[in-house]
Amino acid sequence: MAIKTNVEKGILYGIGVGTGDAELISLKAVRIINECDVIILPTETKENCHAYNIAKEAVRNIDDKEIICKKFLMTKDERLLEESHRQIADDIEEYLNEDKKVGFLTIGDPSIYSTFAYVQEILLSRGRRVENISGIPSFCAAAARLGISLSSGSDEIHIISANHDIIGTSDYKGTRIYMKSGRKLDALISFLREEEKKRKLDIYVIANCGMENEKIWHGLTEEEIPTEYLTIVIVKA
Amino acid sequence: MAIKTNVEKGILYGIGVGTGDAELISLKAVRIINECDVIILPTETKENCHAYNIAKEAVRNIDDKEIICKKFLMTKDERLLEESHRQIADDIEEYLNEDKKVGFLTIGDPSIYSTFAYVQEILLSRGRRVENISGIPSFCAAAARLGISLSSGSDEIHIISANHDIIGTSDYKGTRIYMKSGRKLDALISFLREEEKKRKLDIYVIANCGMENEKIWHGLTEEEIPTEYLTIVIVKA
Repeated sequence: MAIKTNVEKGILYGIGVGTGDAELISLKAVRIINECDVIILPTETKENCHAYNIAKEAVRNIDDKEIICKKFLMTKDERLLEESHRQIADDIEEYLNEDKKVGFLTIGDPSIYSTFAYVQEILLSRGRRVENISGIPSFCAAAARLGISLSSGSDEIHIISANHDIIGTSDYKGTRIYMKSGRKLDALISFLREEEKKRKLDIYVIANCGMENEKIWHGLTEEEIPTEYLTIVIVKA
Repeated sequence: MAIKTNVEKGILYGIGVGTGDAELISLKAVRIINECDVIILPTETKENCHAYNIAKEAVRNIDDKEIICKKFLMTKDERLLEESHRQIADDIEEYLNEDKKVGFLTIGDPSIYSTFAYVQEILLSRGRRVENISGIPSFCAAAARLGISLSSGSDEIHIISANHDIIGTSDYKGTRIYMKSGRKLDALISFLREEEKKRKLDIYVIANCGMENEKIWHGLTEEEIPTEYLTIVIVKA
């Protein structure tokens, strides 16, 4: 007998837990995590999940919940990627069919470069209840650690995925924030080094913001930064 | 006898309280507000201060503290503006000289279009202890209310002060977020209406996000939005 789907059943929350300092989590995120039956982590193991480690500091008994790790495929093959997202959405939907409250933890804010966005879109299109619980984006936490403002007056802010094409981004006025550089961090640093030859830039590099092994540089660094570090590069031109 | 300044004395916190939903305030912001002796509000009266109204919901006894209203001058005269910021920084420094903990409340995040940035810069240059407590930026809260993602994959995000020159911003790829439109909201809507004649845009308008009188439009609205409303316009091209 086919199981009937009742879209009113269950709810999925995308929960932003901020970037490193567990105290930057919101009152709402703490309450919602406490109310959830199931917690989804977008990594292979919970120990490797930054979002889990942050949430655990704020919600000590998080392990009393059902914790599910869902590794997201990292590929530029659109079809494989879509299939992987659909599979994860299907798996989450099973919990919703059981009328469960499901919390999907994300670093930073769920609306900014988060894997949650894919699952959110699929489940919303199926009429499911999905809610986004905002978190402090990494670039705000970085600005706080650096003691700088990102924008004042007429300054614009440009947030750029450094994992993609960055040519042309030097034309942007104001503040540029490069995120998600991963293995392309070296290429980003070379790109900025070239730009620096032509004009004065104010550059900040921050790796693992707010975490125990945080590192900060004012100016471009020669040091090697591990590719698994979450690195943000802020450029004021 | 001149009073000696001891820069180790006192501390100023720029405290982001988020945008409307008081539950989106961070655990850290609540703790720091509780620890402060003096709370600075960047408005003429506390009743008119969004940031105060949010903080009061999260910290019920906030009125037990010394609450000081500091109206920031709104002018494009650079000299007058600088003088006004210096005066406010001087006033805050007096509290620091008394070794007080001073909390300066801001809507959203203190590093994004916040008046706190001016005071922060002046007091840091005088060697004072200044710390920024991140808050949820209004555009993240808006994305959550709208159930949309601001960026995924290679999407860029461009944050623009609509109170300044917006010509050319239609060239930006990805997501554009127009903030601080104030009395220029009509001009912004006209600008986007012209752009919409040339190509398909996905536009969201959200006024007073997360507040009791929040209003949301998908597409450009003909309705009049009061200029004192905090309005965010999100454009996906």
